Amino acid sequence: MGDIQSEFNKGGVGMISWEKALQLIFLNIKPLPAVKVDITRAVGMILAEDVYSKIQMPPFNKSAMDGYAVKFTDLVKTPVKLKCAGIIQAGCSFEKKIKPGQCVKIMTGAPVPSDVDCVVMIEDTRQLKSGYVEILKGGKQGENICVRGEDIRAGQKVLSRGTLLFASHVSLLASVGRCFVKVIRKPRVAVLNTGSEIIPAGGKLGKNKLYNSNGPQLQALLNIDNIESCFLGIAKDEPKAMKAAVKKGIRYDMLLISGGVSMGDYDLVPEILEKSGVKKIFHKVKIKPGKPVFFGTKNNTAVFGVPGNPVSNFTAYHLLIRPAIHKMLGYTDCNPKLYEGIVTRQINKKTGRKHFIPITISSKAGRYYMTPLSGHGSADIFTLSKSDGFMIVEEDVKNVATNSIKSFITWKKI
Amino acid sequence: MGDIQSEFNKGGVGMISWEKALQLIFLNIKPLPAVKVDITRAVGMILAEDVYSKIQMPPFNKSAMDGYAVKFTDLVKTPVKLKCAGIIQAGCSFEKKIKPGQCVKIMTGAPVPSDVDCVVMIEDTRQLKSGYVEILKGGKQGENICVRGEDIRAGQKVLSRGTLLFASHVSLLASVGRCFVKVIRKPRVAVLNTGSEIIPAGGKLGKNKLYNSNGPQLQALLNIDNIESCFLGIAKDEPKAMKAAVKKGIRYDMLLISGGVSMGDYDLVPEILEKSGVKKIFHKVKIKPGKPVFFGTKNNTAVFGVPGNPVSNFTAYHLLIRPAIHKMLGYTDCNPKLYEGIVTRQINKKTGRKHFIPITISSKAGRYYMTPLSGHGSADIFTLSKSDGFMIVEEDVKNVATNSIKSFITWKKI
Repeated sequence: MGDIQSEFNKGGVGMISWEKALQLIFLNIKPLPAVKVDITRAVGMILAEDVYSKIQMPPFNKSAMDGYAVKFTDLVKTPVKLKCAGIIQAGCSFEKKIKPGQCVKIMTGAPVPSDVDCVVMIEDTRQLKSGYVEILKGGKQGENICVRGEDIRAGQKVLSRGTLLFASHVSLLASVGRCFVKVIRKPRVAVLNTGSEIIPAGGKLGKNKLYNSNGPQLQALLNIDNIESCFLGIAKDEPKAMKAAVKKGIRYDMLLISGGVSMGDYDLVPEILEKSGVKKIFHKVKIKPGKPVFFGTKNNTAVFGVPGNPVSNFTAYHLLIRPAIHKMLGYTDCNPKLYEGIVTRQINKKTGRKHFIPITISSKAGRYYMTPLSGHGSADIFTLSKSDGFMIVEEDVKNVATNSIKSFITWKKI
Repeated sequence: MGDIQSEFNKGGVGMISWEKALQLIFLNIKPLPAVKVDITRAVGMILAEDVYSKIQMPPFNKSAMDGYAVKFTDLVKTPVKLKCAGIIQAGCSFEKKIKPGQCVKIMTGAPVPSDVDCVVMIEDTRQLKSGYVEILKGGKQGENICVRGEDIRAGQKVLSRGTLLFASHVSLLASVGRCFVKVIRKPRVAVLNTGSEIIPAGGKLGKNKLYNSNGPQLQALLNIDNIESCFLGIAKDEPKAMKAAVKKGIRYDMLLISGGVSMGDYDLVPEILEKSGVKKIFHKVKIKPGKPVFFGTKNNTAVFGVPGNPVSNFTAYHLLIRPAIHKMLGYTDCNPKLYEGIVTRQINKKTGRKHFIPITISSKAGRYYMTPLSGHGSADIFTLSKSDGFMIVEEDVKNVATNSIKSFITWKKI
């Protein structure tokens, strides 16, 4: 890590590995500030405060069952007949004294009076005439009573800063009375497409033109991650249009630009970003597809320039952009989740770059099997659409034999 | 399946297994009708049409690289000097004829003229003075040219009805010009809490009262599943308030009611549902926690009455409600995803019901290890908040030994 930082301080790096690219992203992006959100919207976010309970949980001795509250000393011998002194509904108090030989009907969630010490569930009782109840089976002392404070004591820390929130935490927050909670806020992301050949989907396709697939694709990926995005449109490959769009985009927490980052004469993105004050962190990563990917920052804005080929675009999101979003969200582990699987079909590749090869995934006896798909490379969105994930093949590997074990990334629930 | 249906036709069933409950849910819920949505919002939804491409993909012979378009016959011997006849930008045409000995500079995504048949990438060329270019390495015929229609032919079916849509499909839909797509629509869900002891979180907690945790919990779970929900408030345990709330709720696709389904005198939900025209499908399932769960339908509305204890509520969502939502969404496999893990600590249980025991999950060498958490049962949301999933222990099992293998459900990314 120190190594990469000093390399970076010395004036940037050339074509780097995926691992180094991730390190540089994590070094140059900070978690966003905390905001207060409604607890039902806090799922998937990182808690930005320690949460203490102001109340005991349960707040009072509470019946866990519908049944009869009794004195345990009356249950020495069962069955036993007890006089029913009344009924306690949830939310209400019972003010009368319960004498030996008496019981009181009680509902789940209702307060247990202090002069009883056992709740017998209704299934183990029988109602008799003239206000008597037969207790069929004896319980244990304290049975079916949730004692005040047994789950949580007043003043106790119930959740720690840094917790990734699930629905079970939401329930806990609500039960101690919280409606809002401080969490690391989500990034606001701008999506910009570039390319004079790109037109919005929906219209008639003119000569030499292509429909914009990267814009909807990036917005769909952001939707999956529950991140709000704003589409800034399609900028032509000309400095003026692009400069204006970039100016707008760098006001967001993250700007994703697709196209215009490669070797062409009209690949203006890196130059325009530089002129707009974006500091280059890296340009080009030893991955296939996605090599010409650019990453830079301006103040707290992270800027990615991703290749315009839709498969490269998709790959760059999974390999670099989602980890960057996770860093902004304050996650502890921001790396993509890797699985291991068995290769079902031999493939060859060139050395020099880490390859991410579209695969279908099946599982059998707890193991994953990966079948590489043949396609036409980084523009072939049709092959990508049939895949479940990418198999990862290391830079120096030329041949992958059948039955070898490789890592993979997937977007399918496996 | 036929068995269950006939049992059901004969007038309902008593306390049933989880598996039967799921079968009855799947039998009594239909996928919702199709709607048109923006493709970026279609992720996680089921395609309700076959999608055909009206265009060829790519729509024209397209350069895959920034480089020089050449005649392959000029590359017999390399290095070779060629006269550069111009430049082709993406989105534009090149009208001049390219003669033998000539080449033309070409950008990624630009149309390849018909009188050249190879693109040499820029890294394998050197620009010379006076409009000449040196081609350093010879390519293959057709190299770096994406041929019109090679990925998709006009008229070809690109996606089939029934496909679960991922971001890669969004990109495909966009690339063939679609902005909207027909999908099975998402259910609109109403959440209703009941209980005279329940008050909304945020205020001061009165005597014998509990904060509403099930409402936020259910809404958070629905948010995780990207399902919109409407909170109908907290109804007291009295017929009038409850009837009015149920009347409102059964106008949704799904109504989730928490509390009031058990054995207590004020457990009015099943009766009020019946009076509101909801047909009972089952009431009580052999699961712990969550036994008193109710499921019924009125027309196309599915109604769940779930126990008021927050852990039961949470469990019922994972075991029964989410599968019901998946059925409405048109998923093929609506069952909860089960994993297998190794138990690290011995536990005992009573027979008769399938137990879902909160666990923490760790993984090592490709295997999952489950540690059961000790807690205070179905009201103990604090213990639940520390768990990663539930271990499933079968109805007839009394003791689970260390190192035994059991299924589990998780909400953590594992």
